[in-house]
Amino acid sequence: MKTVPVNLGTRSYTIHIGEGLLGKIGKLLQFSGYGKTVLLVSNFQVFQLYGDIVQSSLESCGFEVVPGIIETGEEHKNLATAEKLYDLAYTAELDRRCAILALGGGVVGDVAGFVAATYLRGVPFIQLPTTLLAQVDSSVGGKVAVNHPRGKNIIGAFYQPRLVLADTSVLQTLPPREIRSGMAEVIKYGLIRDLPFLEWLEQNLDNVLARRPDALVFAIARSCKNKAEVVSADEKEKGERALLNLGHTFGHAIEAGMGYGAWLHGEAVAAGTMMAAELSRRMGWLGEGDIERIEALFRRAGLPTVGPALEPAKYLDLMQHDKKVQNGKMNLVLLEQIGRAVSTNAALMSDVTNAIACRT
Amino acid sequence: MKTVPVNLGTRSYTIHIGEGLLGKIGKLLQFSGYGKTVLLVSNFQVFQLYGDIVQSSLESCGFEVVPGIIETGEEHKNLATAEKLYDLAYTAELDRRCAILALGGGVVGDVAGFVAATYLRGVPFIQLPTTLLAQVDSSVGGKVAVNHPRGKNIIGAFYQPRLVLADTSVLQTLPPREIRSGMAEVIKYGLIRDLPFLEWLEQNLDNVLARRPDALVFAIARSCKNKAEVVSADEKEKGERALLNLGHTFGHAIEAGMGYGAWLHGEAVAAGTMMAAELSRRMGWLGEGDIERIEALFRRAGLPTVGPALEPAKYLDLMQHDKKVQNGKMNLVLLEQIGRAVSTNAALMSDVTNAIACRT
Repeated sequence: MKTVPVNLGTRSYTIHIGEGLLGKIGKLLQFSGYGKTVLLVSNFQVFQLYGDIVQSSLESCGFEVVPGIIETGEEHKNLATAEKLYDLAYTAELDRRCAILALGGGVVGDVAGFVAATYLRGVPFIQLPTTLLAQVDSSVGGKVAVNHPRGKNIIGAFYQPRLVLADTSVLQTLPPREIRSGMAEVIKYGLIRDLPFLEWLEQNLDNVLARRPDALVFAIARSCKNKAEVVSADEKEKGERALLNLGHTFGHAIEAGMGYGAWLHGEAVAAGTMMAAELSRRMGWLGEGDIERIEALFRRAGLPTVGPALEPAKYLDLMQHDKKVQNGKMNLVLLEQIGRAVSTNAALMSDVTNAIACRT
Repeated sequence: MKTVPVNLGTRSYTIHIGEGLLGKIGKLLQFSGYGKTVLLVSNFQVFQLYGDIVQSSLESCGFEVVPGIIETGEEHKNLATAEKLYDLAYTAELDRRCAILALGGGVVGDVAGFVAATYLRGVPFIQLPTTLLAQVDSSVGGKVAVNHPRGKNIIGAFYQPRLVLADTSVLQTLPPREIRSGMAEVIKYGLIRDLPFLEWLEQNLDNVLARRPDALVFAIARSCKNKAEVVSADEKEKGERALLNLGHTFGHAIEAGMGYGAWLHGEAVAAGTMMAAELSRRMGWLGEGDIERIEALFRRAGLPTVGPALEPAKYLDLMQHDKKVQNGKMNLVLLEQIGRAVSTNAALMSDVTNAIACRT
């Protein structure tokens, strides 16, 4: 097992990464001082696979578990689902000392986290991420949210968990496409701020994709360490934290343009990162060899390196829901070199358009 | 004009109290760095009276004002109202730098504050309280919330405003009953932690009730100073902040038992405080003379000093929605002496019952 600290003063916490951690949750919380009743938020599929392990572990340590099973999918990440969880919490008489646990992927973590942030003005929150994407990204850093009918993550909070348990053994049952999607965010950490990790991935990618426990634990812990450092320096995304969004503005356009769910988040981020890399080349920052190096790694991970064939104007239109164009400029995260990202509005819109055209 | 600082590290802010402040809001925000568009949340009645002043002031300083008019009354302090405000904010393209202003009483402040806390994970929030109750209590300290169908303030956050402007001239149009209701919270500060202020109130109550500007500014500033000190020491109500709830557990039972709105909040708090005082007498902490002194002040303020004639068992039942009985004990805020409150579970339930019976 590896542990990664997230240093945020009184809101600091630890991420534990390792095999078989879900069965230890009861023991880990036994002396937490939390109330006896816990709300365990999950979706049907994940709860069927891992609900028993978590529930028995908690019950054997004296907790009373109230399951809160929500529907699967981004379209259920909304206030209506949050209201069902408020109802459950209120009916079960959860008080301020009682914890809410999120057992699942990003949707479960985001909704459960939003409810934990707002029920009784905030109760203890525990993340038990069960997808690679959630383990390396969404469960760490305290961004929680639900969607507005017209926009993703419009209603939310910065609310840090008290504990994150990333049990790598649950990744063995994850569909291969979900593993690949998660790898896009793993590779991202190497690209934006950790060249030695990128080199490690180039050497060990096959072991990670084959889900060798040691390789998974290393890749996840190193990803979490990178995210934790960024979040510790800039919890509320006033500066450096924005660098975590490499490829995401292009990627959001892909996800929205194709209808959410058609492209997985990591797939859109991989193609979007190639657009950002191409634009970085046009800025004179990356060379052809750098582009090929990034593309080779995404390809080996089974990720797309070009976006869907929407018109560049359509991309730009969708991107502007994420980032406004001001005086003909748009803030984007680009690469000054492999291993170093920068947030800049220096790119010409004509270059943005050409970079998109080049990668669709 | 008086100013009161609320010291909360990076979340510190200032309360300004004085005549005619609403017309200065534009100038005060001119160099704030906030986005050009602001969402001005109010209700119809308040907006008719003061919307123009605020809107012109903001517009003359270059802001674009989007009015968000919500329905009056506790029954509209819910997620449905919050959703309408999210819609408005999203349609008007408010970004993270844009402020949400609350112009009104506690309901407007609570809903607008909840939306400000959660829209885009938090945008700048400004309180422009227009009732005495909101000026001395609810606009200060960062408690924001909406109601759940089955309970008050179940969904909320601790989210501090960036600025509070208490314009005392708006109190001139407030119905007398609202002034009296606000006085219950003013008197409370004297009772729980500020004996000199209580003595000042005993000497100057008539000037405050007659709404003499100097007396209003002093009473409001002193109330805010007391609240600010408590909140600075204990923002998230882990200890001392609970002392602000003197009379509130009994009071909540009155409000809920009679149906919300039948008794104004301050009326219920005054009667509830007499129950707490009577219980404090039974603990041996207050004497008969103390009870008479507190009662005399509430009476002069035109506030009730006995609760409605519900059965004590009904009171206890309603109080337990607020505070659980554990091992036959209930945490209550009582008075060790006039000017010093304490949170305790030492009272016998039989004494609680008798104190209620004595004051109904």
